[in-house]
Amino acid sequence: MSDAKASDPRLLPDVSHLAVGVLGGTGEQGRGLARRLALAGHRVTIGSRDADRAASIAGEIGLGVAGLSNEDCARACDVVIVAVPWEGHAALLTALRDALRGKLVVDCVNPLGFDKQGAFALRVEEGSAAQQAAAILDESRVVAAFHHVSAVLLLDEAVDSIDTDVLVLGDDRESTDIVQALAARITGVRGVYAGRLRNAGQVEATTANLISMNRRYKVHAGLRVTDV
Amino acid sequence: MSDAKASDPRLLPDVSHLAVGVLGGTGEQGRGLARRLALAGHRVTIGSRDADRAASIAGEIGLGVAGLSNEDCARACDVVIVAVPWEGHAALLTALRDALRGKLVVDCVNPLGFDKQGAFALRVEEGSAAQQAAAILDESRVVAAFHHVSAVLLLDEAVDSIDTDVLVLGDDRESTDIVQALAARITGVRGVYAGRLRNAGQVEATTANLISMNRRYKVHAGLRVTDV
Repeated sequence: MSDAKASDPRLLPDVSHLAVGVLGGTGEQGRGLARRLALAGHRVTIGSRDADRAASIAGEIGLGVAGLSNEDCARACDVVIVAVPWEGHAALLTALRDALRGKLVVDCVNPLGFDKQGAFALRVEEGSAAQQAAAILDESRVVAAFHHVSAVLLLDEAVDSIDTDVLVLGDDRESTDIVQALAARITGVRGVYAGRLRNAGQVEATTANLISMNRRYKVHAGLRVTDV
Repeated sequence: MSDAKASDPRLLPDVSHLAVGVLGGTGEQGRGLARRLALAGHRVTIGSRDADRAASIAGEIGLGVAGLSNEDCARACDVVIVAVPWEGHAALLTALRDALRGKLVVDCVNPLGFDKQGAFALRVEEGSAAQQAAAILDESRVVAAFHHVSAVLLLDEAVDSIDTDVLVLGDDRESTDIVQALAARITGVRGVYAGRLRNAGQVEATTANLISMNRRYKVHAGLRVTDV
């Protein structure tokens, strides 16, 4: 990316033409993101292990959303959001390594455990789900984002605007700029650069804190960055 | 704490009478917190390895702030904020174990490393600085808070109000309620419960992300929790 562009972090590219895929798009977070990005006018495809199920859920979402197998979804799209459960994360990405070559991959997976005291962060050998993705997908561009957005709010038709910032992390400025712009396509949301991929682990883990807040305050907590 | 109180997480105790100590109170974060809490009317004492230096810095802060050795500071106060560098954290708390017995200890230490790419989170064996404090101070009540508040803003006399929430973590409701109320004594700040101590590590580490934002956007970033 040019130095001129690098000089103003608030100047973001037009991403309205991008076709967006969502792996694990039949889950709550995946469906919610697919819905909001389709509402913003993007061509959205959700992927699932089961292509028929993907097509069925896509039909429920409407808004022109298509459903394919995870592999066909990856091949069909410019930007591919990874919204699968943490348990299947490494295996799926390893299987899709070829399909994701050269793609912009956006990891929003939160490695969390749950017990009777609520959610807690799991230790990840690579440091974070996003770093694990980057290690597996060494010929893709990996960015971390969309960890904290409430699936409940994304899916709620009564919610017009989502009052949260999306923290975007990555080592490549062009890629993080695109993902910040993509986040901002969701009404109410800003995409805020939040550091290199090596600092993604705590952002993923903070989802456990938001879950604690949700329990204590009976809310759908989000985060806004002040002074930006 | 009574069940009645537990029912409304927004109902917090009056803490205006509390005497507050700040260990490592001659550092930037410590001075900033001491200044704001003294402005709010608290009796504040800063501690340092060197009592003379503590007294001298206390005089510079003014507002009735006193300066003592870390040990005398710990013994003199109801609530003791730990604002020392991570490198000296375990050693100081081990040395002050007796002085801090029965006290409410508020850990705001961020275990961070720095290199030419900026700040990054250090792995902490106990999971977080706060959990390390709790392990050492097994006869104190340990709460984690004040990690993200910009020392620059705390110390800036032109800044009347700090636009940030303080995330408060702990395993004991009475203690987290007190620290939430204490945070709210700083004009502009809310204290928001953000989970148990086992989820403090990512809150400490998120300071690295705020530093990344500060660099990219030339700001003093803070966080607000939405929907709370």
